[in-house]
Amino acid sequence: MGGYENGDSPAGGVILGVDGGTTSTVCVCLPAAMPPPESPGAVPVLSRAVAGCSNRNSVGENAALETLEQVMMQALTMAGKDHSDVIAVCLSVSGVNHPSDQQRMLDWIRKLFPVHAQFYVENDAVAALASGTMGKLHGCVLIAGTGSIAYGVTEDGKVARAAGAGPVLGDWGSGYGIAAQALTAVIKAHDGRGPQTNLTREILRKLEIASPDELIGWTYADSSWARIAALVPVVVSSAEDGDEVANKILHDAVQELAGSVVAVVRRLTLCGEEGADQFPLVLVGGVLEGNKKWNISGEVIKCISEVFPGVHPIRPEVEPAIGAALLAWSHHHKELKLENGS
Amino acid sequence: MGGYENGDSPAGGVILGVDGGTTSTVCVCLPAAMPPPESPGAVPVLSRAVAGCSNRNSVGENAALETLEQVMMQALTMAGKDHSDVIAVCLSVSGVNHPSDQQRMLDWIRKLFPVHAQFYVENDAVAALASGTMGKLHGCVLIAGTGSIAYGVTEDGKVARAAGAGPVLGDWGSGYGIAAQALTAVIKAHDGRGPQTNLTREILRKLEIASPDELIGWTYADSSWARIAALVPVVVSSAEDGDEVANKILHDAVQELAGSVVAVVRRLTLCGEEGADQFPLVLVGGVLEGNKKWNISGEVIKCISEVFPGVHPIRPEVEPAIGAALLAWSHHHKELKLENGS
Repeated sequence: MGGYENGDSPAGGVILGVDGGTTSTVCVCLPAAMPPPESPGAVPVLSRAVAGCSNRNSVGENAALETLEQVMMQALTMAGKDHSDVIAVCLSVSGVNHPSDQQRMLDWIRKLFPVHAQFYVENDAVAALASGTMGKLHGCVLIAGTGSIAYGVTEDGKVARAAGAGPVLGDWGSGYGIAAQALTAVIKAHDGRGPQTNLTREILRKLEIASPDELIGWTYADSSWARIAALVPVVVSSAEDGDEVANKILHDAVQELAGSVVAVVRRLTLCGEEGADQFPLVLVGGVLEGNKKWNISGEVIKCISEVFPGVHPIRPEVEPAIGAALLAWSHHHKELKLENGS
Repeated sequence: MGGYENGDSPAGGVILGVDGGTTSTVCVCLPAAMPPPESPGAVPVLSRAVAGCSNRNSVGENAALETLEQVMMQALTMAGKDHSDVIAVCLSVSGVNHPSDQQRMLDWIRKLFPVHAQFYVENDAVAALASGTMGKLHGCVLIAGTGSIAYGVTEDGKVARAAGAGPVLGDWGSGYGIAAQALTAVIKAHDGRGPQTNLTREILRKLEIASPDELIGWTYADSSWARIAALVPVVVSSAEDGDEVANKILHDAVQELAGSVVAVVRRLTLCGEEGADQFPLVLVGGVLEGNKKWNISGEVIKCISEVFPGVHPIRPEVEPAIGAALLAWSHHHKELKLENGS
């Protein structure tokens, strides 16, 4: 790794952090020589670029790689830099699940930048975790948006995940899962299998349809998971207004989400052998946004703390792309320290 | 309806029964002048033709109508008849759910046959019911194959259905529902959210994959519901071998299926005001085939009989297309009797 003097990064060198998702892809550019970031407000972002989907399972590998290259080059240009200034990159991309996915991306990105640069390829949950821990890879992250996943990392690099298997495979705590349960409750109330619920009136109003019979056609007209998940606010407001069916759906979702965190924490012994150590839990995603009367994330934390009282909840103040960049930054500075024996 | 002498059908006249499904479409041709069928073996089938999918939601309206026309003309040719011999037709087609679907099909079929012929357009559940009641429209049918639905009709023509809303909307008693729960149980055992189960070994062996991690890719590689439902026999054999998780999945499915029948019977008062009258329950579909040690249909009937002791289970001995033809036959003969004042 030679070539730097004074055990420090070259003055003009930069670090890229990429958060690649199914909806959009964000790349931020940070100066490699910045001091350790003490607070979210202190991160000196040089530039930020946005592009479309980079999930290879959604748009195919070529299109995904093209998007990633484009967003990184745009961020460099915006910062007045070029590819030769790049010292480290962290790509945190959804759809990267297997070591083989990781290896293929590493082989690809090495060809874009100088030979001495460092590269890290991770699942997008890793950037979400780092966005809450300011780049330190330790603890658990719970993401609950359209989908849901719990992902944990120990200080010595062991990882574990739970849920995140999509709607067919039981992600009932996700936005999709909550909304699908609500739609099912409307169908069951209509055909006599379940209790009456205000969800019927509220969901029909929201979708501007006249009868539960039309829900079947609406549901299968489009296979987008996000379109179903967009009904979560209707479920939350119905629960807040006292609807028992909506309340049960949210309580069940809380159990599912808490259960996925507990499984990860247990497998990684994140809470120590006695089960009482503190560990960070980063909470991310629309379902966990906590400014509602029916506080889903608050209930999830309460459930987890009954098993692991050391849970320390964190809501990230920076976006996942910055989490990815901080991850690359701290990996890079650890390497520098090792090389300089400090 | 004039033109027939002796209050009987013309000697060469025929009746067509069509069972239109998502996998295949079957048309049978019966002589209109046949006597009332006393037993399944006594139905004098003149011809039987088979074609592909006629579910308009799957292949589009034009392709569906083309398939239906083709299969009817083929059955007529095979019976040595032509369109002018047709006296009555019953089309019982999946994907026909709304009165507007029915009306459009009636308008279409009227142009294919003589003006004096009679036409009936129904959902495919109706033919399944008629296949068990030998053409009499009264009682309830429970279909559980890839999907599931309970459908009932009263003697005075009131109808009700429950379930049948597909995998997103809670058809957990269907083959798809049972198999999706089993796949979920494998994922949960693997990531620490659920108990260990033999389903893991059995499903991985059946799918020829090495690890539960690969199940996610397998599941979303193809959106066919039937491909998931094909795992039901693995769940049944695991339950028969004593696996608790598999047993719970089947018991839950039994509750769902029984619940859908109970909802229909209750709404239609099929069991009389006191709840004790006899009513026929026709059982159709792969999930309800009763020659296994773990007897799903037997358990469903037991559950229903606890609420409605008058349930009279029937396993059809003829196929749904014959059910559709018998329906057209009995409608036609009722009309004849009315006209002749008998």
